[in-house]
Amino acid sequence: MRETRETSGPEFIEAIARGLDVIRAFGTLGQSLSLSELSAATGLARPTVRRILLTLDELGYVRATDGTFSLTPRVLDLGMAYVSASSIWEIARPHLEELSRSVGQSCSLAELDGSDVVYVARVAVPKLVALSVTIGTRFPAAATSLGKVLLAALPADELERVLAVPSRASVTPSWNPDAQEIEAALREVRAAGWALTDQQLAPAIRSIAAPVRDGSGRVVAAVNVNAHAMETSVETLVTDYLPKLLTTASALSADWARWQSRPLAEVS
Amino acid sequence: MRETRETSGPEFIEAIARGLDVIRAFGTLGQSLSLSELSAATGLARPTVRRILLTLDELGYVRATDGTFSLTPRVLDLGMAYVSASSIWEIARPHLEELSRSVGQSCSLAELDGSDVVYVARVAVPKLVALSVTIGTRFPAAATSLGKVLLAALPADELERVLAVPSRASVTPSWNPDAQEIEAALREVRAAGWALTDQQLAPAIRSIAAPVRDGSGRVVAAVNVNAHAMETSVETLVTDYLPKLLTTASALSADWARWQSRPLAEVS
Repeated sequence: MRETRETSGPEFIEAIARGLDVIRAFGTLGQSLSLSELSAATGLARPTVRRILLTLDELGYVRATDGTFSLTPRVLDLGMAYVSASSIWEIARPHLEELSRSVGQSCSLAELDGSDVVYVARVAVPKLVALSVTIGTRFPAAATSLGKVLLAALPADELERVLAVPSRASVTPSWNPDAQEIEAALREVRAAGWALTDQQLAPAIRSIAAPVRDGSGRVVAAVNVNAHAMETSVETLVTDYLPKLLTTASALSADWARWQSRPLAEVS
Repeated sequence: MRETRETSGPEFIEAIARGLDVIRAFGTLGQSLSLSELSAATGLARPTVRRILLTLDELGYVRATDGTFSLTPRVLDLGMAYVSASSIWEIARPHLEELSRSVGQSCSLAELDGSDVVYVARVAVPKLVALSVTIGTRFPAAATSLGKVLLAALPADELERVLAVPSRASVTPSWNPDAQEIEAALREVRAAGWALTDQQLAPAIRSIAAPVRDGSGRVVAAVNVNAHAMETSVETLVTDYLPKLLTTASALSADWARWQSRPLAEVS
């Protein structure tokens, strides 16, 4: 499950790592797992897994039924801790809603985690054909418009480090570029200030993304519009959607900077 | 942070509880916390919090910047483990999308956790006035149509136990019923087979919900349609939306049961 760590200092608490590994194992293997399945998936001894499950059960994160174990919706509290803490949803929601209304397409906000983009906010337009995305979904960054915007903003040494991190996404993109192809794509993005992905992540999906900046000008997230290639041409994305996207990215950046510099009394 | 436990057996792993408490503290207190703030919020000694943060940093869940700590989007993996494991999103999404299209309103799926409902899937229609809900959001069950459907399905002793659990929701509903008022409302729901909430959770919000059952007939979730009281009358909810909602709940239940009884070879 977990990437091998090169060094774990004496202060590292192994029990926490193991507990989180067991929670994540459910995401890979599915609902209602037995002790043996969880032991095999995590590489932990059965008595260890059993104690972890008893602990998670007592804390309300796991439920035992007829000898199998499943996660409870309380696990969502952990993911929500990230969303609540960052205030991203509150700040981004009105902007994503307005953009989505104005272009009639789904819009998302994402951040970088290693070489993946992770969706942190989204306003979806119900469609028959849509990319299956929910908050927390991750895709290899280089194959997405959101990811190209985020990668393009990194200093060279940081970019190299980030791209070396193995993807934790569950999908394999249509396009798997080498380092040179990525650098060529990112040079275009740096020059233009926005990024386009035309069916590089998945067939029939096109998207266009722009950076969101904080008060210091640092790129902290990316916002995009997502469309079906059968319905929406690259020209529509660039001539019709892009100006609206850039306006949204700029208004969202201003709100973000305002939130960051709010008086401390408002921080509660 | 954590509710006081009456008994913690000798097998309980305190480090896991503490690690999860620190993650959840960010959800309550916000981004960029200092060691002292986290120590005060969790009731843990500073050296303990420091070791937990070092561990979470090494695992990629926490990032240290200039002496303060913040969660990374990797924390969303934990919440996603629940969503992926339960297959709820995959099974529910097409049904919620069709219902949302057909009534032009946002639709949600929720489960019970203690006395709260927790949203586990949602298809939102972008609207200027909308209830701020995302996956993982929790509300006191008795004040919502989703919650009334779920509470109404519980045996009497289980209902009593569940209602005694303190809410972990961050909102206080407009309506705070006593045990008798809840029982009267649930009797109506049991008789009708669906539930209505008219501005009991929040002013201007109305919703109507129906149960989702598994192959054994047990209620496993609730699905609802949510509307703004200025735009949508109770009559529209009951005469226009209800038949569509009941059809959706029934089709979703059938898919759920089919998924539960799938051949084991498909379980991967």
